[in-house]
Amino acid sequence: MAMKKFINDPANLTSELLEGYVQAYGNKVALKGEKLVVRAKPKDKSKVAIVTLGGAGHEPALSGFVGQGMLDASVVGDIFAAPGPPPVFEALKLMNRPAGVLFVVLNHAGDVMSANMAMDLAAKQGINIRKVLTHEDIAPGANAPAEQRRGLVGCIPLYKVAGAAAEAGKSLDDVCRVAEKFNAGMATLAVALKTATHPQSGGEIFALADDEMEIGMGQHGEAGTGKSKMMTADQTARTMVVQLAKAVKARKGDKVLLIINGAGATTLMEMFIIYRAARKVLAEAGVEVARSLVGEFLTVQEMGGFQMFLAKMDDELLSLWDAPCDTPYLTVR
Amino acid sequence: MAMKKFINDPANLTSELLEGYVQAYGNKVALKGEKLVVRAKPKDKSKVAIVTLGGAGHEPALSGFVGQGMLDASVVGDIFAAPGPPPVFEALKLMNRPAGVLFVVLNHAGDVMSANMAMDLAAKQGINIRKVLTHEDIAPGANAPAEQRRGLVGCIPLYKVAGAAAEAGKSLDDVCRVAEKFNAGMATLAVALKTATHPQSGGEIFALADDEMEIGMGQHGEAGTGKSKMMTADQTARTMVVQLAKAVKARKGDKVLLIINGAGATTLMEMFIIYRAARKVLAEAGVEVARSLVGEFLTVQEMGGFQMFLAKMDDELLSLWDAPCDTPYLTVR
Repeated sequence: MAMKKFINDPANLTSELLEGYVQAYGNKVALKGEKLVVRAKPKDKSKVAIVTLGGAGHEPALSGFVGQGMLDASVVGDIFAAPGPPPVFEALKLMNRPAGVLFVVLNHAGDVMSANMAMDLAAKQGINIRKVLTHEDIAPGANAPAEQRRGLVGCIPLYKVAGAAAEAGKSLDDVCRVAEKFNAGMATLAVALKTATHPQSGGEIFALADDEMEIGMGQHGEAGTGKSKMMTADQTARTMVVQLAKAVKARKGDKVLLIINGAGATTLMEMFIIYRAARKVLAEAGVEVARSLVGEFLTVQEMGGFQMFLAKMDDELLSLWDAPCDTPYLTVR
Repeated sequence: MAMKKFINDPANLTSELLEGYVQAYGNKVALKGEKLVVRAKPKDKSKVAIVTLGGAGHEPALSGFVGQGMLDASVVGDIFAAPGPPPVFEALKLMNRPAGVLFVVLNHAGDVMSANMAMDLAAKQGINIRKVLTHEDIAPGANAPAEQRRGLVGCIPLYKVAGAAAEAGKSLDDVCRVAEKFNAGMATLAVALKTATHPQSGGEIFALADDEMEIGMGQHGEAGTGKSKMMTADQTARTMVVQLAKAVKARKGDKVLLIINGAGATTLMEMFIIYRAARKVLAEAGVEVARSLVGEFLTVQEMGGFQMFLAKMDDELLSLWDAPCDTPYLTVR
């Protein structure tokens, strides 16, 4: 049976998708070499650079957010696979500057290994670099050790607030402080409904019965907190947002950023319904949804499901969130 | 078997999704009554108003593009169903102003009927209103009578260019002229790969075998130009873009706008690969892809497939395309 995807040779997926991406948004992004996405019009090197890395197959993330006010560079791996240490090290060298580099790494084994090896090489060359590790998945419990908690969609709003601080000319210390403050106050929980096909192997990445869903599943079908029977949108939203609010300690009077990130096949129609239901639960607790995003930011091919993200916002973070940015998949005027 | 969607009572889908939508983007859009989406911060009535109508279930369109520089109002129907004449007439009355109203209608029987009846009522009240009917689907042949050709994703870039002209204070005559010029030079062709589930009936909206695709299918499973065996991304893109370039008479030296609009489950990864391939074919013919969009603008639930859109662009249209806009799902800085 032919795979029902519009592809050519599966070996060329990443290079072909990146070629199309930088052509489509050539006024905002460019390729350096084969798999490094950079800004088409880089600002002078007086600002802190924000760099990230990760596998392909989750478009638009992460490279979708390279541009003014967010990322300076995104090192891309192959489908669902971290890039190796050499291209990451090359990217860090390219981004090196007196103002320094903030390196945002999502907690997945391959990404962390490549990032750490590249950082060791960079340190030997005296590159001024600091790492922020995102690990906001609360599926293993909000108090589980950081190394057990995956980095999910939270990296994207983190690029936004750290990127805004960098764009404003803040020091590496300050950009780092902002990123760590945001990182400490965020949480994500995913839910899966329908599997996706791996675009290279053609295999299904997990299995769920026709009447089942699974809360807590990772970006590539990693096990969650267990399967359950399908719930309504309102029940699903309540189950998830209660855990998220508890994890970020959102209390009466607090302001939060709420993101519903579609996994791929789940419609925006459903995401709006879920968003509305989550907001209702937060309102009951006196928590104000001060900012929101609803759409597809970090996907898993044509998987059915979504990630719900919550972060506490203070005045500084709100102002960074509202600062202008201009990237292919997020623009703030 | 439970439908694998995050919904509550199927009867409330549209009202719940609209409630979530205007909450999520409350700084840009608002609801007037139950199913009329308007700007949160309407400009004074000295500008021409751009109004549209259409069924829900295709999010983000059409209401996703209400905001500065694009639509003033979007009258929403139920899932896959046109709104009735009364709410459309109410919207036209609300938008009535000396500068006039441009009414953008997609060629689908229900939409056209409601639009015409509402316009008749509006005319009796002396409302200054002009209609543009989009019908850019070339599946029945580029020379088929307009009434046989459906309105697909082309309405969205049309909102953009007409909206920019209106925002710049142009007269209704001028906004209309720009809209009709763009309308006359655009074409869309859709391809379907995998069916979607109707979120109210739970039924599949069409059927395709595991190794089949169909070019030319409409927004709700309407028949296309016939089924074929699955092709590669490059073959699919070539087959489609050659027909589109012919339809809009794109010749060597011409500039075009190219849009790849995902139907729902087809990934952005695939859309970039298709985009790249279409661009290659156009380059061979000396046609310059001057502007692009790749993403989900007008969807059909979790259908697999996409629409490819091509429009000829002159300096005036390019400048209107580049003008700032600020809507929930398209922002230009």
